Amino acid sequence: MPVDSPYPLVSIEHALTTILARSPVLPVIRVPLAQALGGVLAADVVAPAPVPPFPAAAKDGYAVVAGDATRHRRLLGEQMAGHVGHLRVEPGSAVRITTGAALPAGADAVVMVEYTTEREGWVEIETTVAPGADIRPVGQDIAAGQRVLERGTVLGAAEIGLLAAVGLAEAPVHRRPRVALLSTGDELGEPGEPLAAGQIYDSNRFSLAAAVSLAGGVPHPLGIAVDAHEAVESFLVQAVADHDAILTSGGVSMGKLDLLKPILEAHGEVHFGRVVMKPGKPVTFATIGDKPVFALPGFPVSALVAFELFVRPALRTMQGDAHWQRPRLQVTLAHEVEHDARRTEFQRAAVYVDKGRFVARTTGAQGSGRLLSLVGANALLELAPGEPLLPAGAEVTALLLQPIGA
Amino acid sequence: MPVDSPYPLVSIEHALTTILARSPVLPVIRVPLAQALGGVLAADVVAPAPVPPFPAAAKDGYAVVAGDATRHRRLLGEQMAGHVGHLRVEPGSAVRITTGAALPAGADAVVMVEYTTEREGWVEIETTVAPGADIRPVGQDIAAGQRVLERGTVLGAAEIGLLAAVGLAEAPVHRRPRVALLSTGDELGEPGEPLAAGQIYDSNRFSLAAAVSLAGGVPHPLGIAVDAHEAVESFLVQAVADHDAILTSGGVSMGKLDLLKPILEAHGEVHFGRVVMKPGKPVTFATIGDKPVFALPGFPVSALVAFELFVRPALRTMQGDAHWQRPRLQVTLAHEVEHDARRTEFQRAAVYVDKGRFVARTTGAQGSGRLLSLVGANALLELAPGEPLLPAGAEVTALLLQPIGA
Repeated sequence: MPVDSPYPLVSIEHALTTILARSPVLPVIRVPLAQALGGVLAADVVAPAPVPPFPAAAKDGYAVVAGDATRHRRLLGEQMAGHVGHLRVEPGSAVRITTGAALPAGADAVVMVEYTTEREGWVEIETTVAPGADIRPVGQDIAAGQRVLERGTVLGAAEIGLLAAVGLAEAPVHRRPRVALLSTGDELGEPGEPLAAGQIYDSNRFSLAAAVSLAGGVPHPLGIAVDAHEAVESFLVQAVADHDAILTSGGVSMGKLDLLKPILEAHGEVHFGRVVMKPGKPVTFATIGDKPVFALPGFPVSALVAFELFVRPALRTMQGDAHWQRPRLQVTLAHEVEHDARRTEFQRAAVYVDKGRFVARTTGAQGSGRLLSLVGANALLELAPGEPLLPAGAEVTALLLQPIGA
Repeated sequence: MPVDSPYPLVSIEHALTTILARSPVLPVIRVPLAQALGGVLAADVVAPAPVPPFPAAAKDGYAVVAGDATRHRRLLGEQMAGHVGHLRVEPGSAVRITTGAALPAGADAVVMVEYTTEREGWVEIETTVAPGADIRPVGQDIAAGQRVLERGTVLGAAEIGLLAAVGLAEAPVHRRPRVALLSTGDELGEPGEPLAAGQIYDSNRFSLAAAVSLAGGVPHPLGIAVDAHEAVESFLVQAVADHDAILTSGGVSMGKLDLLKPILEAHGEVHFGRVVMKPGKPVTFATIGDKPVFALPGFPVSALVAFELFVRPALRTMQGDAHWQRPRLQVTLAHEVEHDARRTEFQRAAVYVDKGRFVARTTGAQGSGRLLSLVGANALLELAPGEPLLPAGAEVTALLLQPIGA
């Protein structure tokens, strides 16, 4: 009779709900704009003043009275951007003005320099001018009191520009999670050094650190722990004190070397120890105090797929990002695909647009150790249990990890 | 008669070709894997050894001879991952083995622990076993000598994992460009401080710094220069010495305050000073020595659109990335769109999938100062000159800046 794991198999949905309920949103900090890229806004941003704050010239030219039909007008002086004089424009006169300068009193239009000739204190206006022409009225871009950005917005280049434009030097964002990373396993060697017999190179610590950065977290790789209770326990106890989340890989197989779960049980609570999915079935989630601990499988692809499905949503949630979901698309298989009949299987694929349809081609052999299957993949196909052979042309769901090429 | 600019209007294609021919690929450096995320590989990566380097157990269980029909087999000992003993499996015997451990001599299959019972030095095998079952043969993931990553690959989490898996502790990548940033204009105030009369807040320095980071460059914001020849000249001379590219905004309008071009002409060569596009027409490109200098328009949207079309390709090219092109899609307009009849106009839009089609909705008023038009936009619609009114349902080209939502 098969040996049973004491941990029931839970569904992907149950696993995710369990994790998100235990992924606390981190405190709000204020960061200078130069460090705000990728941060998640912790509060709505309201413009305290209009932009522009005064009627401004939209072009270089001459500030005039639009209703004035005089062809030659007397030049009163100039108004340069950033300087405000005491000139007043009246019919028959004009003020030289540069883009962005405040409109002088009396003027109601700007004539572009291209349609003028200036000579000896006089300007010839070679076109007709409508009131308001080439003027940016007060608040044209942003009205006073307007909400320009919503809480939860991820700050990109334009958003950071907007914060600056309304006069803010700092952005209120949620702190980024500090994530401790540990690889476990006596078989793991350090890249750059020779391998001993029976060893392979540790890759998870590096790939997961990169994945943490891409999810907005701050990775703290803490090395390789040997397969010994004391080594792993001392790591966990120390890591919990200084970090917001803990990420381990390896040591969660079913055998006697399921190291992690007993330690997690002793110091905290294991919420699940197996999930009905492929790859990534042994993924384990625990909390120690209020700190989430993810014990990922050791196979490199299993670890990254489990990260994508469970750890990334947690790290985004901790940063206050409610829109962490990847776009889901219906795609057409370019070829026959064999998959697990009993567990939802996530196969790596390239999704592209062909004749107006989304088409998916898997990225070669889908072994859980074969990191090459993730290179060139921009999507995970989510293949529900059922008929093990999907024909070319079948429609399946894809989770988009990267933009679609065209 | 309109005043002519001494700089001819050039096409977008001409401008881009001119820039790319003057964007030198930066030297190759070796960075530790922990700093390699987003780097562009400067050489192919070939696996010096196979992965796994030995036949390994794919599961926890028992190493056996597959052809052996004995139900009860004598337990010879165990082979743990990372340890290599001197056990030899023969018919009638078995060795306990953990996932990732090297297969002991003589064995040709692994039986999962779930299908066994171990008792007093004997193992009962409760299933039939095929040769090779649950074994990862040598080179299953990566063959010795296999090219695992190509020169020009942008390093993500899986790629960094692959480098580690083949034993590399460092990645050869092109150095990231150091980019000096300067805003020019007497009208610019510093966010966080009160504005003087006639001033607005500088936003370009912050939005462009973020855009440089997103393009893989390292931004060095050097402040605001007043509209004075000496201030701008001394900035440029100093910036060129310490940076790979220079980015200014403002000061390239047509009037007397077209500050930048005379200085650029005096110290280097201006390759173009106007481009047939909207927004961004005054964008100027020069070189000082072999350093590219981009003088972007001052309006915030103009600056970011010009960055996207001209500066980002240059910065990606300098990093050795040949695939910097954004995906281009044919999209259907969700509503009527008015556009410039004579210049290619780039309108900001949200592109989404609706009933299997890509649909685009513009993000409100498209003024060149209105940064809000970039918030929530994942695409630039590229509207070619022609009929100024495009009806709802018209097909246009979109440059995808962000993934498509679903």
